[in-house]
Amino acid sequence: MTTTAISTYHALTEAEAIALAAGLFPAGTDLECQEIGDGNLNYVYRVSDRASGKGVIIKQALPYAKVVGESWPLTLKRAAIEAAALRKHGEYATDLVPEVYGTDEELAYTIMEDLSHLTIAREGLIQGKEYPKLSNDIGEYLAQTLFHTSDFALHPFEKKRLAAEFSNPELCKITEDLIFTDPFFDYETNDFEPELRQTVEAIWHNDRLKLEAAKLKRSFLTEAEALLHGDLHTGSIFADDNETKVIDPEFAFYGPIGFDVGLFIANLIAQGITRNGDGRGTIVGHIENTWQVFETRFTELWENEGIEDFKKVPGYRESVLDKVFKDTLGFAGCELIRRTIGLAHVKDLDGIEDAAVRIESKKQALRIGETLILKRSELTSIQDVTALLKEL
Amino acid sequence: MTTTAISTYHALTEAEAIALAAGLFPAGTDLECQEIGDGNLNYVYRVSDRASGKGVIIKQALPYAKVVGESWPLTLKRAAIEAAALRKHGEYATDLVPEVYGTDEELAYTIMEDLSHLTIAREGLIQGKEYPKLSNDIGEYLAQTLFHTSDFALHPFEKKRLAAEFSNPELCKITEDLIFTDPFFDYETNDFEPELRQTVEAIWHNDRLKLEAAKLKRSFLTEAEALLHGDLHTGSIFADDNETKVIDPEFAFYGPIGFDVGLFIANLIAQGITRNGDGRGTIVGHIENTWQVFETRFTELWENEGIEDFKKVPGYRESVLDKVFKDTLGFAGCELIRRTIGLAHVKDLDGIEDAAVRIESKKQALRIGETLILKRSELTSIQDVTALLKEL
Repeated sequence: MTTTAISTYHALTEAEAIALAAGLFPAGTDLECQEIGDGNLNYVYRVSDRASGKGVIIKQALPYAKVVGESWPLTLKRAAIEAAALRKHGEYATDLVPEVYGTDEELAYTIMEDLSHLTIAREGLIQGKEYPKLSNDIGEYLAQTLFHTSDFALHPFEKKRLAAEFSNPELCKITEDLIFTDPFFDYETNDFEPELRQTVEAIWHNDRLKLEAAKLKRSFLTEAEALLHGDLHTGSIFADDNETKVIDPEFAFYGPIGFDVGLFIANLIAQGITRNGDGRGTIVGHIENTWQVFETRFTELWENEGIEDFKKVPGYRESVLDKVFKDTLGFAGCELIRRTIGLAHVKDLDGIEDAAVRIESKKQALRIGETLILKRSELTSIQDVTALLKEL
Repeated sequence: MTTTAISTYHALTEAEAIALAAGLFPAGTDLECQEIGDGNLNYVYRVSDRASGKGVIIKQALPYAKVVGESWPLTLKRAAIEAAALRKHGEYATDLVPEVYGTDEELAYTIMEDLSHLTIAREGLIQGKEYPKLSNDIGEYLAQTLFHTSDFALHPFEKKRLAAEFSNPELCKITEDLIFTDPFFDYETNDFEPELRQTVEAIWHNDRLKLEAAKLKRSFLTEAEALLHGDLHTGSIFADDNETKVIDPEFAFYGPIGFDVGLFIANLIAQGITRNGDGRGTIVGHIENTWQVFETRFTELWENEGIEDFKKVPGYRESVLDKVFKDTLGFAGCELIRRTIGLAHVKDLDGIEDAAVRIESKKQALRIGETLILKRSELTSIQDVTALLKEL
């Protein structure tokens, strides 16, 4: 399934990167180039003005993924999906995604706004940062991007055109396997400490939990509600105290709205587990505020910009948001479980140095994950969710 | 949104139709051609051997639809969708769809098996025919086509490729408007006798009903579960006592499984309303048998051919079928309402000559439609559905 473009595809040289970026600077600017990616999935070139330091980013997809030491082929088409998603989401959340200056499908690169003055939110949160604007901005981002790409805002021809354009089978398959399937079975992609084996085996034998996971997987496979980011964890967000930018939407596709909301909230929960006292309170506040801002803005957009004939029918908006809320909890639960025992972990939990605390924290993550999946019909407010974190 | 092919598109002449079909007959066969379509949406040419009478059908899409005396442009792409759906469904329900011999996208025609020895099921049912194989065959058709094109049977790459191939925005829009929207509002496409006005206005003011209709519309817009026929009423079925063939899948797209099941059952209900005694009993039997055969065969396919990792989790298949059942009832309810007061009626009800009986029958159709929509969570078996017909 890798694209034919691989035959002409090659990794950009630094000189090529400079040439591609040159047009974005005044003629004669003295430019330099640094490759600053981690080399697992993409090259990331920063081309900058030696004098002012001002730069742009060129992100180029690798034709394979390196995970746990192995490589497997991965479609280059994801670069085009990512660029198109940044542009589409940028129409509705202009200040919350990097600007795209150019893109090339064959060489699988995107030239975009340089965000190196910001830090990855996960890294900052692990260092104890508060990011006071984070939940306001992400709540706004979620409402704007998800509402505006849904049937509530788009003519059905445009919505279906976008759904076909953003068909993203290979990246979706990664999610289908790693979030919704593998962690619930004794499959070899799973990765966890021996001390967790008993807890993990209990998951593999918990038919009630697996039934709910199966339903959530089915929602992910079938429900084309809005153009999702598709991988909205705290590592996909650049931030500082004043700014928030959502990056890396290469998993973008038409899916259930609650998936984006749930992934973000799950990653906040994973961070909250590692904190105590006021530190945890900050995270609790972000979780509650994310949902509240999302719900409030979604409601305003529904009322002011909604095109659905049934939009004024009493209870309809509430019923839509209720579905999104329950989906959010279920997807958050799956994300917490897979980030603890699946292939791809989070540094928040893995980075806890004290082994006993780390194991106990992971058990807490698994327990909250299970509760969110199993009790998502009973938990009726975001405070019911954060109570799980406060109770630890 | 009509295709560019219109510039080269032209209605086939009878001589062209004969030339296109000639290769399907022995060299030198003396062929004749008759145009036998109703001229509203398509030309239908029957090319046959003068000596033996054996023929083939060439169906050519018109670049517009004639409805209630007006014309509006309608994509020619529907011919390609129809041919592709016949072929795809034919892979799984070989004997239950016409064989496709050839197709041309630019001229928007499909050459297919001649079924003129059969009658349209709606016409036969109106004449009181029993069609003893009808519900067995349609139950089988539904299970085979819907299971095999779902995520339960297809690799996700193939499912998503098909979902994009069968993106069918223009024809879906007709359904979105005429089934799910217009009948619930005082819109000008609606068409009903003055004697029904009070009942119809009660529908327009029934917020509980409209809330449920909105949810069903949303399912139709977002839930890409399987490759549907998309318009499976009794006028899309050719039958006699021994054979059943499903035709005209030009509305095919990836949608909720219950939509196909629900449309068929709604049209049986509309026919059942017009009958009494044993005649009604036959229809009750067909409704119950359709669901039972569908459920039984879907279950067998799930167990024998299902590829979903979660397929053996206790309760998962039941939960999927429970959703399909509730969707079926809701969609059937919408179909009953729109076939009574919307733009496109059914001859079963419109053809009742006695005005008082016709109005009363239509009120029964509306009442059953409302009940199916509002009570779809309480009606737990297909016998609960047919009880509504028996109680009349």
